[in-house]
Amino acid sequence: MFVYVGTLLHATASNALEVLLGKALGVNNGKIIFIEDEKELPALQQQYDIGHDQVHRLGEREFLIPGFVDTHVHASQYANAGTGLDLPLLEWLPRYTFPLEATFSDVTFATAAYRKAVTRLLKNGTTSACYFATIHTEGSLRLCDVIEEVGQRAFVGKVCMDQNAPDYYIESSAQSLADTETFVQNVLSRKNALVQPVVTPRFAVSTTFNLMTRLAEVADKHNILVQSHLSETRGECKLIGDMYPDAEHYTDVYKRAGLLSGKTVMAHCNYLSDGEVAIIKTTNTGVAHCPNSNISVQSGLCDVRRLLDNGIKVGLGTDVSGGYNPSMLDAIRYAVQTSNILSVNKDDSYTKLDYREAFRLATLGGSQVLGIEDRVGNFVIGKEFDALRVNPCVSNSPFDIFDKDTTEDTFQKFIYLGDDRNVTEVFVAGKRVLPK
Amino acid sequence: MFVYVGTLLHATASNALEVLLGKALGVNNGKIIFIEDEKELPALQQQYDIGHDQVHRLGEREFLIPGFVDTHVHASQYANAGTGLDLPLLEWLPRYTFPLEATFSDVTFATAAYRKAVTRLLKNGTTSACYFATIHTEGSLRLCDVIEEVGQRAFVGKVCMDQNAPDYYIESSAQSLADTETFVQNVLSRKNALVQPVVTPRFAVSTTFNLMTRLAEVADKHNILVQSHLSETRGECKLIGDMYPDAEHYTDVYKRAGLLSGKTVMAHCNYLSDGEVAIIKTTNTGVAHCPNSNISVQSGLCDVRRLLDNGIKVGLGTDVSGGYNPSMLDAIRYAVQTSNILSVNKDDSYTKLDYREAFRLATLGGSQVLGIEDRVGNFVIGKEFDALRVNPCVSNSPFDIFDKDTTEDTFQKFIYLGDDRNVTEVFVAGKRVLPK
Ligand SMILES: [Zn+2]
Ligand SMILES: [Zn+2]
Repeated sequence: MFVYVGTLLHATASNALEVLLGKALGVNNGKIIFIEDEKELPALQQQYDIGHDQVHRLGEREFLIPGFVDTHVHASQYANAGTGLDLPLLEWLPRYTFPLEATFSDVTFATAAYRKAVTRLLKNGTTSACYFATIHTEGSLRLCDVIEEVGQRAFVGKVCMDQNAPDYYIESSAQSLADTETFVQNVLSRKNALVQPVVTPRFAVSTTFNLMTRLAEVADKHNILVQSHLSETRGECKLIGDMYPDAEHYTDVYKRAGLLSGKTVMAHCNYLSDGEVAIIKTTNTGVAHCPNSNISVQSGLCDVRRLLDNGIKVGLGTDVSGGYNPSMLDAIRYAVQTSNILSVNKDDSYTKLDYREAFRLATLGGSQVLGIEDRVGNFVIGKEFDALRVNPCVSNSPFDIFDKDTTEDTFQKFIYLGDDRNVTEVFVAGKRVLPK
Repeated sequence: MFVYVGTLLHATASNALEVLLGKALGVNNGKIIFIEDEKELPALQQQYDIGHDQVHRLGEREFLIPGFVDTHVHASQYANAGTGLDLPLLEWLPRYTFPLEATFSDVTFATAAYRKAVTRLLKNGTTSACYFATIHTEGSLRLCDVIEEVGQRAFVGKVCMDQNAPDYYIESSAQSLADTETFVQNVLSRKNALVQPVVTPRFAVSTTFNLMTRLAEVADKHNILVQSHLSETRGECKLIGDMYPDAEHYTDVYKRAGLLSGKTVMAHCNYLSDGEVAIIKTTNTGVAHCPNSNISVQSGLCDVRRLLDNGIKVGLGTDVSGGYNPSMLDAIRYAVQTSNILSVNKDDSYTKLDYREAFRLATLGGSQVLGIEDRVGNFVIGKEFDALRVNPCVSNSPFDIFDKDTTEDTFQKFIYLGDDRNVTEVFVAGKRVLPK
């Protein structure tokens, strides 16, 4: 049991940035048990028998925020992060990405590479992540090992691809299905509530319809998440149109395969028609908005406002390495910038996404997309304590605070200019995972 | 006299990223005196009488690059960097920017704020900067003091604005002109080749035509640079059209005032017509492309390819605090991303700006825009040694290197994911200015 005393910032359904000053937040058994005004602290200490050494006071400029939720990231592609950004998706995959992913057949390499990736995300404050691994079962299980080792909360998917992939990096449909079942059962058997399997057809270009329908059954059977990519680029949308001349549209392909539900995460969704938006909404599918990737590999700009206005669940994804940056701060910035760019050519009735709303997507929104909003995403009594201690005045901080800066200015500077140096402690389910 | 031995990367007119492996680069009296293959080192040491302690060997993954050139940055707005990004330019100025700039009448505050700004830029590897200060002569001179103190190379402008500004932050035309003359003479009298004055009408909205013409004469008389803003937002272009019904276009206003020449830096240039592009070219005016600012305050996207194809000199600017980030690495990233976004809706004949070209704009291109390409911008014998020592493997580095990464991969990761932690030494004119 411990208590933090000071400033809390988080998002709620009705308030994208709630600033709570002078609060005492108590944690027991990994869960938040009280959030009270600081003046109640003596009474709370007595009530819960909390000693002085269990009370941590934040510095004047410090604050706690909920841990970030990355709803779409390829752990296996982290080695390429910041390279290979000159080609659009359908050329980028065979040129840079499949060759890298294929090397994850080497379990020793895979383990080391995954350790770097997961550690990097955690350092940047990502307490929950939804990962693509590779097609390799063994390597994908090593990713789970690494996640357990560092103490992150995560969903992990063994990638399934049985067509339109190079000879050196493809599976048979039967093998893909069997390996998925093996992978899912292994992860579930760990009984670690923090690490869950997610059924992962790569996307409709690379996964046959038959395999997709069988994978949907696996997800149903185990009542677990599904993740894939939808409508990322124009070229891919056209290709799907050619591959599925009878489908109404791209979204219809996944719907017919039985893959869309409240437990599904679809990355990108950049070129959805109104009909597709309606299906995403009625199936309660969640969207992982990946704004850095959308720009870096020249896919296009996703109009998140439109998705939100239609009541769709939206989180943010770094989509490493189509997105070059593994930090959710970067995802927040690019989400705002994407909306800014779209707003230039819209009339005044268009409401830009502001940084507060982007912060909400990166925390509470992500938790909704991953179906863990009852456990994490913001500071609510009964939820687990996934949190970041942020110090804007740490030595060697990447930005400067001035006397004039309010609490919200300081927070905004952290969002726009801060980095892992400012994230001085990381908690997952009440356990401090960084620094070790 | 000293020598660096190892990897050099820089841009030339014909090669946006030249990778030089195993070189010995010698510096004497601030200037590069040789760049030879490492195997020549013993002979060079003998020839120039260079001792062992004057030879610095870079680590295997380390490299030198030219210092960055920020062609457009408001030193006075740094206190707001990362805040106040919800409004377009013409609302942003009176709401956030003029109130902040007005506080620079307080010379003590100004000195402290400028010290933070200049130090921050230098930490991020900006060895040359072209600054806007405020309308205050005394404060603007303190900015020069701070620059001399930290050892940066810079152009500094006292801002001139005598109309369409709030009562609390405006000058009379006569005062603005007299103060500019005072400021220019003071800076020139310092006889510090690294710090030069630049005549700075804010922009045609805020500076009367009469004052602009008189300022052009001041610049001519002293043979010094002019800087201003041109065609940043649609709203501003429309306003200029209303203010100058007889002008052919926005660019024509500056041309008639006598402000356009090979010694002029115009920031933004987002909405230039073909006629305007032709005038920018024929007058040899330089463009400061400010991609972060263009997106952050929703101005629009500048098609830099078009400017380059027309033979126009282009550098990059952070444009703090319209741009939220004082690092030129960020400017490089946003320059690439802006081009990526534009490319989505262009046909295949459109050549995106790649990260190498953006790096060239941030170094050699900037030096051309500021008219100092004979002194800095890349590694050429006879040029001054403005350089950054980059260590991609510094402890606490923001990114990871893998065995597979080539020299260029490593450089690219630094460009996309690196920060001031990787910039372990900063040199200006052969003097190491960081660490002190
Ligand atoms: Zn992806
Ligand atoms: Zn500016």
